Amino acid sequence: MRLDDLGDGRYIYQNENGFCFGIDAVLLAHFAKLRRKDCVLDLCTGNGVIPLIMEKEAPDGAIFHGLELQEGAVELARQSVALNGLEEKIVIDQGNVCEAASIYGAASFNVVTVNPPYRKKGNGAISEGDARAIARHEMLCTLEDVVREASLVLKSNGHFYMIHLPERLQEIMAVMQRYGLAVKSLRMVQPFAQKAPNLVLIAAVKGGALDMKVDKPLVVYQDVNVYTDEVMQWYQDSGVAKN
Amino acid sequence: MRLDDLGDGRYIYQNENGFCFGIDAVLLAHFAKLRRKDCVLDLCTGNGVIPLIMEKEAPDGAIFHGLELQEGAVELARQSVALNGLEEKIVIDQGNVCEAASIYGAASFNVVTVNPPYRKKGNGAISEGDARAIARHEMLCTLEDVVREASLVLKSNGHFYMIHLPERLQEIMAVMQRYGLAVKSLRMVQPFAQKAPNLVLIAAVKGGALDMKVDKPLVVYQDVNVYTDEVMQWYQDSGVAKN
Repeated sequence: MRLDDLGDGRYIYQNENGFCFGIDAVLLAHFAKLRRKDCVLDLCTGNGVIPLIMEKEAPDGAIFHGLELQEGAVELARQSVALNGLEEKIVIDQGNVCEAASIYGAASFNVVTVNPPYRKKGNGAISEGDARAIARHEMLCTLEDVVREASLVLKSNGHFYMIHLPERLQEIMAVMQRYGLAVKSLRMVQPFAQKAPNLVLIAAVKGGALDMKVDKPLVVYQDVNVYTDEVMQWYQDSGVAKN
Repeated sequence: MRLDDLGDGRYIYQNENGFCFGIDAVLLAHFAKLRRKDCVLDLCTGNGVIPLIMEKEAPDGAIFHGLELQEGAVELARQSVALNGLEEKIVIDQGNVCEAASIYGAASFNVVTVNPPYRKKGNGAISEGDARAIARHEMLCTLEDVVREASLVLKSNGHFYMIHLPERLQEIMAVMQRYGLAVKSLRMVQPFAQKAPNLVLIAAVKGGALDMKVDKPLVVYQDVNVYTDEVMQWYQDSGVAKN
């Protein structure tokens, strides 16, 4: 276990043998737009990095739940919340994302965020107990589970924010449409200006009209190991370590 | 009616009161990848610009059908085909895209291309007989009609290429998945490097696996009225007038 600086006197516990947060979490936390008194659920919250970053910039009265199945990650997340004195703002719940709607009840949240496992199960040599593999592969929940439960726990007109791989964009868009989540904006994340995107940020509204926009790409690096101004600012805001 | 230079001694008739081709047609014609002896169907072919551009660069033995309902456009397209001496390569058929599968029979083509009407019907003041409105709005066929018929007329593993608006990407991806067209590549078309895309190019395979990539964006202008090298080359290749 190690303790990383989230800046501004805020810290996060990470398990070096588990899955440490990467740029995905930082991008998603800044992509999600919160309003006053929003009640936010972060699915597959891991060590709680997304609520920990989001809470820092959140408008008044926003409260956060993070749902995570793996005991080790739940423990770390709770320790980080306590260390930062955020027990009134962030609650970490242990439970299965596939049962989120029965855990919290339907229409309980204004916002759902998720940085889910990106890859399908079944690419061979992965042991069931491997925390890293569970964070990356759909071993405990599928894309459809995540989207279905997100839609169920969202209030009408509630907002859904997800980061995922471009490779799976057709499945993502189709399953979201099937569960009543109308994509409102897509933002491709490109490592460099003239490179293909390797991540995609997706914002949707429950029960919204099918009318979306694709934003200009988010470029991460302007040069090798040099972030663009847009990304650098988020790292400065949140104070998180650069990768 | 006017006669425009397509370059290389090739010409196209356009109706100034109808819908003259724009950059969309040029982008789609170059995005589609053809192989020897491909049998290609262009739906909503209008004045035939897409087969006329594609045929020029096509590998040996490729043949083209263009399907168009509006009599005026069919007439223009046939005149252009004749003027360029391409009657053996390009056949323009008059008919409704909603009936493409019954016109041609199922599994008749290796490739389908389409630059369909982009916008939904029902935005008010459009007269039914307006050729320009029919080219832009879904008055005679919907997105679902186009995708369903394309899927039906394609052979297994046949390729589908479409250009459309980013605004409709979720509907597009979902309806394509429903009709068995697996998106293989998306390319966003941005007017300038730091602008949001205003068009999207989509390539899919009938019956393929759901595993796609998003290419680096295609940037059209490097400066006001100055095409990027990539686009300029296509205009030089095809010789078409620069908008």
